[in-house]
Amino acid sequence: MVGAVRDLSLRGGKRLRAALVVAGFRTANPNADLEPAVDAGVALELLHTYFLIHDDWMDGDTVRRGGPAVHTQLSRRFRSRELGAASGILAGDFAAAMAVDALSRVELVPARAMAVLNCFGQMQMDAVLGQQLDVIGSGKNVETTYQLKTGSYTVRGPLRLGALLANASPRILTALDRFAMPVGVAFQLRDDLLGAFGDPEATGKPLGSDLRSGKRTVLLTTALRRARGRDHRLLKSVVGTPRASDAKIRAAIGVLERSGAKAAVEARIADLVTSAEVALRAGRIPADASALLRGAAHALTERGT
Amino acid sequence: MVGAVRDLSLRGGKRLRAALVVAGFRTANPNADLEPAVDAGVALELLHTYFLIHDDWMDGDTVRRGGPAVHTQLSRRFRSRELGAASGILAGDFAAAMAVDALSRVELVPARAMAVLNCFGQMQMDAVLGQQLDVIGSGKNVETTYQLKTGSYTVRGPLRLGALLANASPRILTALDRFAMPVGVAFQLRDDLLGAFGDPEATGKPLGSDLRSGKRTVLLTTALRRARGRDHRLLKSVVGTPRASDAKIRAAIGVLERSGAKAAVEARIADLVTSAEVALRAGRIPADASALLRGAAHALTERGT
Repeated sequence: MVGAVRDLSLRGGKRLRAALVVAGFRTANPNADLEPAVDAGVALELLHTYFLIHDDWMDGDTVRRGGPAVHTQLSRRFRSRELGAASGILAGDFAAAMAVDALSRVELVPARAMAVLNCFGQMQMDAVLGQQLDVIGSGKNVETTYQLKTGSYTVRGPLRLGALLANASPRILTALDRFAMPVGVAFQLRDDLLGAFGDPEATGKPLGSDLRSGKRTVLLTTALRRARGRDHRLLKSVVGTPRASDAKIRAAIGVLERSGAKAAVEARIADLVTSAEVALRAGRIPADASALLRGAAHALTERGT
Repeated sequence: MVGAVRDLSLRGGKRLRAALVVAGFRTANPNADLEPAVDAGVALELLHTYFLIHDDWMDGDTVRRGGPAVHTQLSRRFRSRELGAASGILAGDFAAAMAVDALSRVELVPARAMAVLNCFGQMQMDAVLGQQLDVIGSGKNVETTYQLKTGSYTVRGPLRLGALLANASPRILTALDRFAMPVGVAFQLRDDLLGAFGDPEATGKPLGSDLRSGKRTVLLTTALRRARGRDHRLLKSVVGTPRASDAKIRAAIGVLERSGAKAAVEARIADLVTSAEVALRAGRIPADASALLRGAAHALTERGT
């Protein structure tokens, strides 16, 4: 079980959250030694391992980072689906416990320790609430799910944690929050576009998997609201239909574009990135840090289709 | 999902770990205001809610603290076993995140914050490792499982956390560790005896449930080693046999006693409690604190059959 946690953690991944901890740290202190930020990045990567393991089991995904999902690997190892599920959940739990342990070893200003821990707990709560909304279907509040899962957990939390480690002022913390929330939502919107229009080879997701699983993305709900007549019926017929043919899926992807939903989501992403950049100016973030954060915002929201 | 976490947390339970945090705190400082210990007790009770929720799902238990287990309650609520399981795991995850959040709000000496967090992370890791050994069957190392699940997680961790909150000296911390480990193992041995010989009405566990589920308790492995001939065959025939008749179960319980296993476990409990008391004297724990801890040891290991 512990080996499966190690394998998944070291098998790759974008190390997005760890990079954002460093960006937050650098924003608050351009010169300090990066070691505390790197160590806290380890804690966040372990926390992320935990969520990936539990999410994959919930979503029934069997592949992660180019290898077997943890519950899949453990089901084989124990030759039992039940033992694989139980040990998989425990593998996630173990990664979460190791994340706390890793956090407890970060060198920091003692007076900031409890604020760092509070930030970590908040990220954990938001990610769980976001996943719960995902699991039960969040209805019309898709952007709430995005704010919890990627806004808070993926972008705001890591930036804030890094800034706290560098003993940031309240002004910097507020500016980073205002920058992070729109970037996190835009990141998720880009992910939705990639899920629908991206090359399956490059994204690692099979063609139309979001449509087939019936995932309520902003892209889909916008298209359902805009499409009329035959287009609307066509789109509805593939949503949540795992066995829809590739031809029908391609036609439905055409509707996502034709209805104007794709363009609307692209426009929303551009708006969100603009408000993130406004937050940097309003917060009087120094030029070097501002360039770093703008770069991060573009990397997160302009990933190629 | 959040409501289910609240219901289970407030439905009762012995609040054992919270009481031990207070005992550890009092040992290190007889006069300080108890509030930090009480707040940390809240964090540990939430952590315990988390483990109970995940354990109940793994063990297929449907009742907890006189009400439905969380995954059972949520399966009913969502009218789906799958959604109930996924939301149940997330309910546990949410309780764990709230535990971190609660811990981040405890008032403490800043210089001790990271040691407190480290202790919390260690408890979490040990409990998960103990549960994993339980799930896959720990073979001959039953006492290792006990040391992880009750030694470290139930007794040592809470005492240590309380002591750290009261800024305990290294001498006090070492003495508490040496006191706690034997008490934790003895607590679990008593639990095994209650599981086999306790009144089902009082313990809330059905007659012979440990035998029927095939749980590898020290009591059982001792009896299997000692019993001969027909007694040995009789005992083996009910272990891991959920449908064994009550008559057969009663006969097997007779073997647990007749083989001398019950007496051997009672003797082991007495030995462990003695070494715990020796640790208090060797650590020169002051008389008042020593009396409190001896009382705790007896309460934990002498619960009536």
